[in-house]
Parts: sequence; C-alpha cells; structure tokens
Amino acid sequence: MPKFIGAREGLRMQEQQSAVVLFSGGQDSTTCLYWALNQNYARVYALGFDYGQRHRVETEQARRIAEMAGVPYELLPLPTLAAIGDSALVGSGDVSQTDRAGLPSSFVPGRNLLFLTAAAAYAYKVGARVLVGGMCETDYSGYPDCRRATIDALQQAITLGMEYPIEIVTPLMYLSKKETVELARSLPGCWEALAESHTCYEGVRPGCGKCPACLLRAKGFAEAGLEDPAFQSRP
Amino acid sequence: MPKFIGAREGLRMQEQQSAVVLFSGGQDSTTCLYWALNQNYARVYALGFDYGQRHRVETEQARRIAEMAGVPYELLPLPTLAAIGDSALVGSGDVSQTDRAGLPSSFVPGRNLLFLTAAAAYAYKVGARVLVGGMCETDYSGYPDCRRATIDALQQAITLGMEYPIEIVTPLMYLSKKETVELARSLPGCWEALAESHTCYEGVRPGCGKCPACLLRAKGFAEAGLEDPAFQSRP
Repeated sequence: MPKFIGAREGLRMQEQQSAVVLFSGGQDSTTCLYWALNQNYARVYALGFDYGQRHRVETEQARRIAEMAGVPYELLPLPTLAAIGDSALVGSGDVSQTDRAGLPSSFVPGRNLLFLTAAAAYAYKVGARVLVGGMCETDYSGYPDCRRATIDALQQAITLGMEYPIEIVTPLMYLSKKETVELARSLPGCWEALAESHTCYEGVRPGCGKCPACLLRAKGFAEAGLEDPAFQSRP
Repeated sequence: MPKFIGAREGLRMQEQQSAVVLFSGGQDSTTCLYWALNQNYARVYALGFDYGQRHRVETEQARRIAEMAGVPYELLPLPTLAAIGDSALVGSGDVSQTDRAGLPSSFVPGRNLLFLTAAAAYAYKVGARVLVGGMCETDYSGYPDCRRATIDALQQAITLGMEYPIEIVTPLMYLSKKETVELARSLPGCWEALAESHTCYEGVRPGCGKCPACLLRAKGFAEAGLEDPAFQSRP
C-alpha cells in the first residue's frame, strides 16, 4: 500500500486519540471514514451537517454507511449558510459585485471553515483530538478552503481559540481521484460502503451518470480501471 | 480622545471598505457599533446570531439599537452550538472529562471562532472586508477565543480559505472595562444607545443588578465615575 500523505501526519497522536470524521456520505468522506477506522484511533465518530442541501438522500446514505461501519453518526443543524445566501439576495445592492466567477448567489464561501470549526467544537465535547476531512488540493475545483495552507491556519486558530490541540488530518489532500479510488480499494470494508455512498447532484441512486459530480466520480473509477461498486450490484 | 489599539489597525482599509459588526446588543458590541460608525467605513452592517440564547430580549434590544444607529441588522440562525451541547450529553461517556474547569456541559468552546467565520461568509456576500468584534483580552474571563493571537490565526485562515482578505478589528481588545466606558462616552450617539443595550443574564431590563454580567458592567461604570445610562432615565 502506498504511503499516503496525511496518513503519516496522523501517526503522532492516533494511538491514544479519538477522531471525528467529517462525513457527508459521499465517496471522499466514506473513504476517509474507513481510512480512520484503519488507523488505531481510540474511537471514531462520523459527523454530518444539515445545511439545507438539496438532497436529503445524502444524509440517509451517510447514516446507513455509519451503521455498516459501526460508528456513531451525528447530524448537526447548520442553517446559517443558507440564511447568509438568502440574506444577500434581499440585502445590499453589492451582491452582484461579490458573486465573482459567475458563482450562484446561494454560494457561500468558507463552507469548510465553518464545518471544521463546528466539528472542532463537537470534538472537544466528545473528547476527540483529531478531525479527519476529505479536502483535496489535487482536483482543486475553485474552493480555496480545500487547500492545506488554509487547513493549517485554521488548525492553529482552533488550537489557540479552544486551548485544546486539534489536529486536522486530510488523507486525500494530495491524491488524484484515481488514487482515492485505489486507497478505498485497499481499505477493509470500504468498497462495500462505497456502494452506498452518494455523489449525484440530482439525488438519483446510485447516480444519474450525467451531472458533474457523477462524471467526476466515474472518471476516477475509470482511471483506476475499476468498476464503481455503487453500479455493480444494480440491474 | 485616547489612541485605542485596534482603532489604529482599522485605519489602513477603512476608507473604501465596508464593515460588519458582530452585534449582540450588549454593552461591548454596542460600543463597537458606534466605534465603527465613527470610522469612515463605506457601510456598516450589524450582525447577530440566534444560537438559542436564553433571553431573546437581547436580540430585541439589538434590533432597537441598530435602528437608532441607522444600520441594517441581520440575525442569523446558528443552532449548531446548542445541538453540540445537547449531543454531548447523550453521547460518549467522556463528557465529564472534557468539561474542564467546572464548565456547564452546555458550554461549547470556540463560539467566537464560529461567529467570526460565519460573519466572514456574510461579509463576503455583502462585499465588506472588515469584521469588528468586541473581543477583549484585558478582562479575559477564561475564553481563549477572545485573545488577539487567536483572532490573528483565524483572520489568516479566513483570508486563505475564502481568497478574500478579511481584517478582524477588535477595538476593545486591550481596554479595561473602565476604558470601554470612556470610549463609549466619547462616541457620538453611543451613550444613548447604551441605555438600550442589554447585559443581564436574567433577562431583566435594564438589569437585575446582581448577576455576574450586571456586576461586571456596574464595575466598569463605577471605575469610570459615570452613571450607566441604562439606569438613568428609569424610576
């Protein structure tokens, strides 16, 4: 098994520590969940956010996968992002100016910052010292809060702000989509869980096969020369 | 007027920029709001959070003060903190271990980190580049997320994570409670607004005079040798 960056970073604390995995029920966070289970963390928690995502099927699949993995799953309410998106629509006249790069007005930047900060507060409460997130620089698609430099700065802010050392581990940070598929293949139980993971923007199970999310997922499996397990057992 | 630290920091960007004030309707954030109005920010926004605080009178007073100040007021839902507090109660057995220093189990650390990160997303949407917060190191009461080192790290994380330079200005950071009262006295309109500001934990208007929040507020006014305007016009 190749030595994945991020895995190495986690070695320092993992043996005595518990970890909270940011878990949406998608391909990347499912891989992260099984990556965490394959470390020697004392306990692994799966944490999702209900932020008004269009398709609740995502959180249903997340709950199912957490059950398969035998880890507790918590879904925290986070309606703040949607409220910010809406508020800007009825707010100042400067909205169009801030919607750079043709992003939809409902787009709220720094979403991962908010998720990670809330996850850190949750980790503090359950006594975990590690956050595991599927952020990835390689297939960087315009989200600067996925970059390791951002994660490092936030890790420091959280550690200072909570007086509680938190390590944010990002096992997929420097992997291509192909390598993420290969990592999943190497993790016991992960392949079966991937069959339940949800990616499709249209909310279709196992996937519409046409939306950008489905196409990106398909590309990774194709490059790895492996069939997506979500499609294998289906007619 | 004395040269307050924090004010100086704001000078660099203030003339062309708009500012979002984290605004609870309390004494400190009311002083920050009027401090911001006394700078040359293009626009000033007041932003509050509905996070399940016991006394809604706080947000009612906030709305009233924002009206007096002539600034838009937005109240964003943030039930995440309360959900984390509750979840830990029914969660793992490690809760007592994490409740250091006798803090109640509903206490969630890093609250200011979450507020500031959400405020940054709001600032992005309305086109503001400055956040103004009443965090204070001087009367440091066990909240490490009030310290400037924490704020600096978070400012960097936000700026990197949103690719949008945000400056977090904290005019009260190095002031004593007495100096905060003196600053408020020097700001046009602020004294009248302070009469409407809410501090009391018991939700009593203008204040029960006995809870820790009321006592701390009274101490600042007493040391400044000034009568709290919230009590002046009352029977």
